Amino acid sequence: MTMSAASRLVSKRFSSTVTIKPTPSKVHHHQPLPSSSFPSGYLLTGIHAGVKKKPEILDVGIILSTSKRPTSAAACFTRNAFKAAPVLVSEQVLADNVGKARAIVLNSGCANAVTGKQGMEDAWAMVKETDALLERSASSEGHDTMVMSTGVIGQTLPISKILNAIRSQQQGQKTRSLGNDFSAWERAAKAFMTTDTFPKLRSRVFTINGNEYRMAGMDKGAGMIHPNMGPPTIGPLHATLLGAIMTDAAVSPRSLQRALTYAVERSFNSISVDGEMSTNDTILLLANGAAVDKAGVDVKEIDEETDPAGFEVFRSELTEFAIDLAKLVVRDGEGATKFVTVTVKGAPTYEDAHKIASRVSTSALVKTALYGEDANWGRVLAAAGSATLSAPLHPDRVSVTFVPSDGTTPLPVLVNGEPEKVDEDRASQILSLEDFEVLVDLGGGDEAEVARYYTCDFSYEYVRINGDYRS
Amino acid sequence: MTMSAASRLVSKRFSSTVTIKPTPSKVHHHQPLPSSSFPSGYLLTGIHAGVKKKPEILDVGIILSTSKRPTSAAACFTRNAFKAAPVLVSEQVLADNVGKARAIVLNSGCANAVTGKQGMEDAWAMVKETDALLERSASSEGHDTMVMSTGVIGQTLPISKILNAIRSQQQGQKTRSLGNDFSAWERAAKAFMTTDTFPKLRSRVFTINGNEYRMAGMDKGAGMIHPNMGPPTIGPLHATLLGAIMTDAAVSPRSLQRALTYAVERSFNSISVDGEMSTNDTILLLANGAAVDKAGVDVKEIDEETDPAGFEVFRSELTEFAIDLAKLVVRDGEGATKFVTVTVKGAPTYEDAHKIASRVSTSALVKTALYGEDANWGRVLAAAGSATLSAPLHPDRVSVTFVPSDGTTPLPVLVNGEPEKVDEDRASQILSLEDFEVLVDLGGGDEAEVARYYTCDFSYEYVRINGDYRS
Repeated sequence: MTMSAASRLVSKRFSSTVTIKPTPSKVHHHQPLPSSSFPSGYLLTGIHAGVKKKPEILDVGIILSTSKRPTSAAACFTRNAFKAAPVLVSEQVLADNVGKARAIVLNSGCANAVTGKQGMEDAWAMVKETDALLERSASSEGHDTMVMSTGVIGQTLPISKILNAIRSQQQGQKTRSLGNDFSAWERAAKAFMTTDTFPKLRSRVFTINGNEYRMAGMDKGAGMIHPNMGPPTIGPLHATLLGAIMTDAAVSPRSLQRALTYAVERSFNSISVDGEMSTNDTILLLANGAAVDKAGVDVKEIDEETDPAGFEVFRSELTEFAIDLAKLVVRDGEGATKFVTVTVKGAPTYEDAHKIASRVSTSALVKTALYGEDANWGRVLAAAGSATLSAPLHPDRVSVTFVPSDGTTPLPVLVNGEPEKVDEDRASQILSLEDFEVLVDLGGGDEAEVARYYTCDFSYEYVRINGDYRS
Repeated sequence: MTMSAASRLVSKRFSSTVTIKPTPSKVHHHQPLPSSSFPSGYLLTGIHAGVKKKPEILDVGIILSTSKRPTSAAACFTRNAFKAAPVLVSEQVLADNVGKARAIVLNSGCANAVTGKQGMEDAWAMVKETDALLERSASSEGHDTMVMSTGVIGQTLPISKILNAIRSQQQGQKTRSLGNDFSAWERAAKAFMTTDTFPKLRSRVFTINGNEYRMAGMDKGAGMIHPNMGPPTIGPLHATLLGAIMTDAAVSPRSLQRALTYAVERSFNSISVDGEMSTNDTILLLANGAAVDKAGVDVKEIDEETDPAGFEVFRSELTEFAIDLAKLVVRDGEGATKFVTVTVKGAPTYEDAHKIASRVSTSALVKTALYGEDANWGRVLAAAGSATLSAPLHPDRVSVTFVPSDGTTPLPVLVNGEPEKVDEDRASQILSLEDFEVLVDLGGGDEAEVARYYTCDFSYEYVRINGDYRS
């Protein structure tokens, strides 16, 4: 038999070796922040406990609220069926305390996930050791600490190293490094890092009803990033993304949770690096009410029912802040060389638009084409079409446009279901940018809500990092 | 500020360059088959029409039934919302003919997907030109040809080249190459190929009620492989997998469709190369009744209602055959170096088991770990836990085992939710095999049905092939 056709194809696939281009460093996204932008009433640090082998690497982080007012807490946890021990424990603490908590402890290097009974004991031990750092009030009987872990799945924590590290922060210890300046916040942010190339730390100052508040937070994540998080106890979730946001606003626990759930849907639940839900995804939010008004008096508590307008400003500030933090994760995606916004409009519902944006953002073929700077928009369509929606699409109303980030003219590639004669040079020009947008308009009218997803490309570097992660 | 932690992580990610190992050739999976194993009453060929630039490459295939009895036809089409023109046209032909068709025409090199009105015209033109190759009976008024296309999305076909190629097979033309020997079947199989490294052709002989039948077929696919196909008109589908199966059994159209739907669910809908549904996925099945019994008399028609036992044998033979063809696609997956069976048992339902097997089989982190021969079973669990199921899982009943293909002892890594102390050398030994199985037992009892998925690893080679597919 002749094998000429096969041989030729074989040669296309096997003829050459390719050397991996190193992806550029992203460290410039980390810059000093003014200490005045950090919320009052918090102490933070990061410590080298020894979870990670290399000396100096910070792998345990501690965040304490020192406010005299009660600190409200809210959280969104992974929907994965195999929730890690720290997720289960934090859920329990939050439930027992009815939306109050005063501390966060976390470690990187080991996820304490799928670790059986030992894992649960270890997570509780971290909570108790951190509780001991807090000034106990007469009323505090339960636990005040929420816990997070990230790293390898299926290995148990080196728990005594971690407990020693927490103990090193007790009052009067010479090793105590807790603080509230940039350096303290930076240490905590560094303790979150796994394959991240820079600590992800941001802060902002905002005003509600004439009072000034501060919000700061950090997150981590570079791989296993496709979070789907919901408020506590609503079901299983997934993806190793960890984040903590602290504000000195006073917010009622119920309103705080509602604001966070809304913000997470539009930020952390709208990013993807590799389509992977984790067992550990967690976003924690503390509001300690330590801010004071111009007269130095404690600020009023923000509540959705008593002050809807004030609540809306808070929710909007929180959402914008969460989007900023979430984008940093994509920016630092494992092996990423591109930052791509996938916008879907004109869908039957927001949920449908979100599903399509998610499918396009996770498609291996779309992401390898983005890496190859190949305007293969057909792959965008194929991915979009694979979503299961609430109503059928109309292929003859669908348009796709590549929108450059440099303000130059967008390039339509499909208009009402008909492919355009695409100027390939112009397409390459847009795809060679680090940032651009893929706009999918389903033609269902402008009234429908717009969904935005943030994603990156899929490179050799991703395979290299994850083909050999544990070594 | 000090950047020591960040710098160290940066160096882990960016310090070295890696040269891509070429993946081994899979051409040995293509071997000559005895002509006596091919079903009677078919003529096939493959032609170089010029859709692909390189000369000699076969890019148009034609399959004709020459049986004097009516030929039943069945199909499963992609559930993608953006069904390609050939999918829409084949659905229409099948609907108009109430489950009858006598010919298949296909091209590779261009998918004729998302090509608007021109695409529909071109697909119909291919049908009409192929109809003209058939002997017209007095009763045949409609179209008798189903059409398939595969290749780049969003480009229109070089239609006149394709029509010329079809015309070259008319009666009396010197260029006519239609035949029913191995070489003819092989030419047709080659015309299916895109990034495939070998033509995927298989045949089998089977017996029902003492009569001997033959079945042969081919498929293609190496990337954009995660089919979800259903029978015609049940909704949108996706993934570029094309297959055609021909048998000389006589089967009623309704029973043929039911057998194919069952077989496709357990074969082509249970494989994944890259998690990508295509706009073109199509499996076509012809049963022309050309077989004769030992006395030389036409065989009886197989029908589910009149002969359930005979139907069950046919369905089972078809399913096994479809699994064989489907496995070839995974074996030849773009950049694949491993062939991995993901088995899920003890789930609440078969559908739940299938969903979990699908999630594990498409996880980028699982697949890069398989490539790296890293027994990172935590990623298996994280992926399994991300599926949305009909009932909650019980993490404390879940076990994971790596099963080698060489008959040596399986390696449990998780038993009833507790991680085992894994012998890493033994794990590496198993993962270094080309074939092995990942067994996930959800602990729901042995009665529940078992779902099996076939997948491959995710390599540098995949990124290379797809980062630059169109060039």
